[in-house]
Amino acid sequence: MDLNFQINKREKLSDQLYGQLLKKIVAGELKEGDKLPSENEIAQAFQVSRPVIREALMRLQADGLIYSRQGAGSFVKARPPEGLIKFTAPSDIAGLLRCFEARLPLEGAIASLAAQRATEEDLKAIESALIKMEDIMNKGAIADKADFDFHMAIANAAGNEFCVSILSTLHTAMRSGMRVALNITKTGSKERLKKVQEEHRTIYDAIAIGDVTAADLAMRYHIQSARTRLMNHQRGA
Amino acid sequence: MDLNFQINKREKLSDQLYGQLLKKIVAGELKEGDKLPSENEIAQAFQVSRPVIREALMRLQADGLIYSRQGAGSFVKARPPEGLIKFTAPSDIAGLLRCFEARLPLEGAIASLAAQRATEEDLKAIESALIKMEDIMNKGAIADKADFDFHMAIANAAGNEFCVSILSTLHTAMRSGMRVALNITKTGSKERLKKVQEEHRTIYDAIAIGDVTAADLAMRYHIQSARTRLMNHQRGA
Amino acid sequence: MDLNFQINKREKLSDQLYGQLLKKIVAGELKEGDKLPSENEIAQAFQVSRPVIREALMRLQADGLIYSRQGAGSFVKARPPEGLIKFTAPSDIAGLLRCFEARLPLEGAIASLAAQRATEEDLKAIESALIKMEDIMNKGAIADKADFDFHMAIANAAGNEFCVSILSTLHTAMRSGMRVALNITKTGSKERLKKVQEEHRTIYDAIAIGDVTAADLAMRYHIQSARTRLMNHQRGA
Amino acid sequence: MDLNFQINKREKLSDQLYGQLLKKIVAGELKEGDKLPSENEIAQAFQVSRPVIREALMRLQADGLIYSRQGAGSFVKARPPEGLIKFTAPSDIAGLLRCFEARLPLEGAIASLAAQRATEEDLKAIESALIKMEDIMNKGAIADKADFDFHMAIANAAGNEFCVSILSTLHTAMRSGMRVALNITKTGSKERLKKVQEEHRTIYDAIAIGDVTAADLAMRYHIQSARTRLMNHQRGA
Repeated sequence: MDLNFQINKREKLSDQLYGQLLKKIVAGELKEGDKLPSENEIAQAFQVSRPVIREALMRLQADGLIYSRQGAGSFVKARPPEGLIKFTAPSDIAGLLRCFEARLPLEGAIASLAAQRATEEDLKAIESALIKMEDIMNKGAIADKADFDFHMAIANAAGNEFCVSILSTLHTAMRSGMRVALNITKTGSKERLKKVQEEHRTIYDAIAIGDVTAADLAMRYHIQSARTRLMNHQRGA
Repeated sequence: MDLNFQINKREKLSDQLYGQLLKKIVAGELKEGDKLPSENEIAQAFQVSRPVIREALMRLQADGLIYSRQGAGSFVKARPPEGLIKFTAPSDIAGLLRCFEARLPLEGAIASLAAQRATEEDLKAIESALIKMEDIMNKGAIADKADFDFHMAIANAAGNEFCVSILSTLHTAMRSGMRVALNITKTGSKERLKKVQEEHRTIYDAIAIGDVTAADLAMRYHIQSARTRLMNHQRGA
Repeated sequence: MDLNFQINKREKLSDQLYGQLLKKIVAGELKEGDKLPSENEIAQAFQVSRPVIREALMRLQADGLIYSRQGAGSFVKARPPEGLIKFTAPSDIAGLLRCFEARLPLEGAIASLAAQRATEEDLKAIESALIKMEDIMNKGAIADKADFDFHMAIANAAGNEFCVSILSTLHTAMRSGMRVALNITKTGSKERLKKVQEEHRTIYDAIAIGDVTAADLAMRYHIQSARTRLMNHQRGA
Repeated sequence: MDLNFQINKREKLSDQLYGQLLKKIVAGELKEGDKLPSENEIAQAFQVSRPVIREALMRLQADGLIYSRQGAGSFVKARPPEGLIKFTAPSDIAGLLRCFEARLPLEGAIASLAAQRATEEDLKAIESALIKMEDIMNKGAIADKADFDFHMAIANAAGNEFCVSILSTLHTAMRSGMRVALNITKTGSKERLKKVQEEHRTIYDAIAIGDVTAADLAMRYHIQSARTRLMNHQRGA
């Protein structure tokens, strides 16, 4: 296998290594069951330290793409789902996952605040985005705008203008991630479609009854699940 | 309506009020759409302060049993699901919900530790309980023992003997709650059965790949969902 | 007392009410021990609903400015510390507190990621900002730039470009909050100065040894404490 | 150095390895600056796998006892504080730290519930334990009973009987940990004594004003700090 990694001074080393190994799996250079190069081989080819290599491998493992066997090394577990390959450039995947990472604690907290402070009007705006999103999905179209509007309506309900500015900062990245995720959902089974809709409705319900803990949990579970759906076909396919 | 509340010196006032209002809803004395007595009427009949009344009403609202309309008071939203009424004495429901409340942060943390420390052997024990639980459920029986074993196997994998002692302390209450929840699931749709099984499998998967955040989240989402299923028919029925 | 509240359509009602009551306390129109207008009086003067009033009162109570006595109403507990009055316009205080609210979960998560991923170089940048901040504070000057640099160096260490963009979005508001907090610290006792420095060092130490939980906790405790110091003289004066 | 490790079938391997390395540091067999045996040497002497070794080393590092230098191995950073050595058998230290680990999320959640539900009577019980504890500490005695009573009074205020049962289960281990921690505090500086008292008072204050987030945070920060004080002289000595 070609171990000719290119280094880009401005991007984090472990991200670059992650991206390049992912690219090889996506391209089929590394197939299911194939052994990855050893830590030694990677260290020499890429000129990076062990902690950098371990972080990249750990993320590939967390994303369900490789597994490791004690003493024997790491092996390709699965090619990313067709959807991900079809709808995203491999070089964009790591960035897309980091957007989910940043959203997780942030939007959890935003949903908690919304559960404490949402007015009747706020609830109407959230539900209206939710219904629009369900309609568009049921018609087989991509509801990334309505999806973003749903999350933004919750930020508005949090009664904290900084929550709104922060989501605005993430707007482009969130919309990209949503587009990919919704494209994958669209090509999946009907159950998966219903599951995605149910996750959104659970968030709305928790905010509507003012349950702070449930709102935080439902939002974070949704973001974590969306991330998992991107990387991992078997679950909820 | 009879507002003849009985006070029990040893139980928390808001719990007693919660239990007695719940009993009236379960018994059909208060029907869907009926207006609850006003805060003033409750305060006089029960001789308790406003914060006590508000806490009890807030819990009934969080449990999806009542709703409040600005200025007009509180109204019965729904009778608890048949399952809950059939399988639990009304006087036990508040205790059962408090057990879920205590388990939520605790078992979330236990799942995180298990994701960091589970050995191959630990993972086998967790998965074996999971498979047993799925088998029993698929046969239409009540898998409360296997369900508890699943949670206990995770506590064992956390590598902290205090996690094991604490779950042992909660054993009786957890088994009761699981029995009620599984009875309700059994009488529900096939999708709900699959959903309960999937929640458990998501916890196992997160621990198996060593994802600390996902394990915490999956466990807490499961416990929160189980609690919601008890009180709330419409969701995932 | 003059109950002539002005309503501004674009700001949240409870924030406006909070700000106007705060202004009266700051201006000395409402003195320590004075009874606040009743919920009824506020509702009429301000034309807002009870939940809006309760939220505003709850925040004033959380900020240590008022207390409530069962049945008797709410009373002024304390005038905000001199520092806050001297260094901030009353109309800016609510916004400043909302900035702390948004930072709490966000920067906690950022510190966790930094504990997982900080390189030697990242640690040097964090420590260098920390030392600069301590030097400036020891000379009796206001270290808001070094303070912000410290938080930004941690966001850089988190290995997630969205964390950096988000802190950039909050830059102006964070610097304002830091300036007020550091001005109050400067006029306080030597112990308080040491306490603020120690909070920052505890964050650095947790990141340096890679303790994910301790880093999250130390960061959130610091932000919560900074917020408390603003509103509440007696603690750590 | 003698690498003659003894294996005990019933205790977790990484805990045993942690305990035995700790014992060597406490006994002075491994002194400040000494290099620890390599992973290879430990693997052969102890017959354990690399992940087990890494976990034990990672915990020693988290406890501030060793540090590692890229490529060069791990070195002793510090002997545990005199207090810990004087007041605890080395074989008990790992267990004591695991008790803190279990308490962290649990008591955080308990403090949150207490902030929501504490009655005037509950607050009096918490404050009375706090004052007793301060008095005993100021007289130079060991206040482990009052310290436990403080935590138990908070569990009582949480309005959830399972919180009380769980703390009862942990009673012996908590009292042991408190005894050691308070003995170390007693032999420390006056500032440290004040810091410990202030941590408790901050918890009480947050519960008293009903601030759910601050109560959770203050409790967890206190438990994390107590754990750090045990293992780490330099901080707050």
